[in-house]
Amino acid sequence: MGLIVQKFGGSSVANAERVMNVAKIVTDTYREGNDVVVVVSAQGDTTDDLIDKAHEINDHPSKREMDMLLTSGEQISIALLSMAIEKLGCPAVSLLGWQAGFRTSSAYGSARIKSIKTDRLRAEVDRHNIVVVAGFQGINKYDDLTTLGRGGSDTSAVAIAAAMHADRCQIFTDVEGVFTADPRKIPEARKLKEITYDEMLELATLGAQVLNNRSVEMAKKYNVEIEVLSSLKRVPGTIVKEVAKMEKMLVRGVTKDTDVARISVTNIDNTPGIAFKLFSKLAQKNINVDIILQSVGRDGTKDITFTVAKDNAVDAIAAVHETFDIDDKNITCATNVAKISVVGAGMESHPGTASKMFEALYEHDINIDMISTSEIKISVLIDAQDADRAVAAVHKAFYPELN
Amino acid sequence: MGLIVQKFGGSSVANAERVMNVAKIVTDTYREGNDVVVVVSAQGDTTDDLIDKAHEINDHPSKREMDMLLTSGEQISIALLSMAIEKLGCPAVSLLGWQAGFRTSSAYGSARIKSIKTDRLRAEVDRHNIVVVAGFQGINKYDDLTTLGRGGSDTSAVAIAAAMHADRCQIFTDVEGVFTADPRKIPEARKLKEITYDEMLELATLGAQVLNNRSVEMAKKYNVEIEVLSSLKRVPGTIVKEVAKMEKMLVRGVTKDTDVARISVTNIDNTPGIAFKLFSKLAQKNINVDIILQSVGRDGTKDITFTVAKDNAVDAIAAVHETFDIDDKNITCATNVAKISVVGAGMESHPGTASKMFEALYEHDINIDMISTSEIKISVLIDAQDADRAVAAVHKAFYPELN
Repeated sequence: MGLIVQKFGGSSVANAERVMNVAKIVTDTYREGNDVVVVVSAQGDTTDDLIDKAHEINDHPSKREMDMLLTSGEQISIALLSMAIEKLGCPAVSLLGWQAGFRTSSAYGSARIKSIKTDRLRAEVDRHNIVVVAGFQGINKYDDLTTLGRGGSDTSAVAIAAAMHADRCQIFTDVEGVFTADPRKIPEARKLKEITYDEMLELATLGAQVLNNRSVEMAKKYNVEIEVLSSLKRVPGTIVKEVAKMEKMLVRGVTKDTDVARISVTNIDNTPGIAFKLFSKLAQKNINVDIILQSVGRDGTKDITFTVAKDNAVDAIAAVHETFDIDDKNITCATNVAKISVVGAGMESHPGTASKMFEALYEHDINIDMISTSEIKISVLIDAQDADRAVAAVHKAFYPELN
Repeated sequence: MGLIVQKFGGSSVANAERVMNVAKIVTDTYREGNDVVVVVSAQGDTTDDLIDKAHEINDHPSKREMDMLLTSGEQISIALLSMAIEKLGCPAVSLLGWQAGFRTSSAYGSARIKSIKTDRLRAEVDRHNIVVVAGFQGINKYDDLTTLGRGGSDTSAVAIAAAMHADRCQIFTDVEGVFTADPRKIPEARKLKEITYDEMLELATLGAQVLNNRSVEMAKKYNVEIEVLSSLKRVPGTIVKEVAKMEKMLVRGVTKDTDVARISVTNIDNTPGIAFKLFSKLAQKNINVDIILQSVGRDGTKDITFTVAKDNAVDAIAAVHETFDIDDKNITCATNVAKISVVGAGMESHPGTASKMFEALYEHDINIDMISTSEIKISVLIDAQDADRAVAAVHKAFYPELN
């Protein structure tokens, strides 16, 4: 018994049958004696369809009008879900972002939540209504509609849970929770009962694609416990929280990220501050750099190798040219690479983690190109063609009991 | 040069090409030096599609959620039209009903406009933006979305024109204006330059289907001149105003209405107040009665015949049974009837109008069943199969110069 916030993504409400399925989950929770606030995204492909409609008319529509257009998507979802809940005999009321009190920054298309005025939400809960809120949207100081950017509905849900001091925030997806590896690739992968915010952030960044990163950051900031679980299979999911039980595991998970480009620059004159110059230029261009490796060649010139997201590769090469007076032949860009990572808050106190990972790769004849470590993760860059084998080998090394 | 309100219906913005066509009309008006506020409806079949989606989930959705659902339709239209206007190089800003200041009564699905707070509208016009407003919608005192009922976008446009003291209110449709008869049936029908509010109300009620009645009532109340014109053909339309030039015409138009059921009740005991009893019962059931005829039979019993819309026929018969203790055989209902009317503010001072109409029908061997007259119209009930011939005959009688 308490206040539960539940969030359902676009695929969970893609058609009438799925909307009814969500309504069933929500009304079951309500009938167990809980107050329920539900956050939903636009149905299935609605957002993409609306973007297509816009582009038929204008290749570069203003962001304000784009937000006006896209926010209609969740409006349809909340109305339909409320009707479904009423159909199942429970009282429901739908609220748009602005009605639910979401005040955001003015940045159309990627607004940040500034505050939630919870009066209306609270009043509807007090009236024992199931409150169905449009995720992903709010209004700015001009009273104009804004969107939080893709995946923003997760953030909407966490923000409501934080503002209303909810007892639980459940994010329903099409997977059962967070796994030690991608269960579609590694059948032995195991669902985690618990995971810390920091581990989840590393896993999200590394391509686990379960929770939107900004929502995890917000959950960490306001200490909101999130449960990630399936909307199709009623089994416990994974709890994301500040301190998580380790369940005798050394690492939480093994991930693969193939959205990586490796850029190498050789023969740079060895003068002070060259790394600073290059990486400040990249920062100016809003390019996130991941792994960095710098070395001095025999002739006294320097080599720098770094990785960026594939989309940023062309801009990154331009940044290299703008920074150094250098020949094209001294710049190489490889995109057939993959980053394999192990993540776990406990690895700091287990110095053997890195060697265990390297040993597993060595035993399977997989060459390591670059290495990067943080307090809670170890990443290696390898050939893309070895990626799936590498994940399997590393996963087996860390979870021998599962194989 | 002035402030012009333009309204475009759903078929005018049904697809990308039509949206661009509307944007062209709007930007041309703007480039002539006018301030422009545009009111649009939902695209083409959007409203019907949304209703279907709702009924897939719930046969009897709450009206509040239905309005939440349906108002998304205009939201899409205003965003797309604004993008189209920007594409043509003019500044545009879209506003939802609540952003444009529409405050309505609480009756979801058929709300009435209570006030328009024009601050935002005025501010956007002062910034030289073309303002694109969602028709058909507003918010009630609970800050919940409401709709004005079908055809409500006409009313939205007239309300804005009244509140902002616009110089003109143009209602664009798929016809060129108001004609002396249906131009698809009577090729000689002539487009009227001007028509009074009262005449327009009679014509609308009689099935001319050009302007929503409530919008004409509002225009009359606030003395807003409306121009009805085509969104596809750039020619002058018809002006609807308080006093209209008669252009040497005796009547404004001839209309046909086949949505009529004639109910006859015979052998009613001749006691006082029987008409009162019947028609107050019908009023209780929200049934509008049109033509009424009452007579006394030879045996001293009374007969009452009246007409209602076809949809109301079954309820009307029930009302008869509830009022009188009478046999089924004394109640007859005919639906193969049509009402032919001539409308014109000038007919009061021309006593020959009625006889001219009756003569035309007599000459074509068309039998008149019932007659009803008001200050500005004469209606006759005839066999439905004679309806088109009757309109042609009457039209020819009143506009001999056109034939």
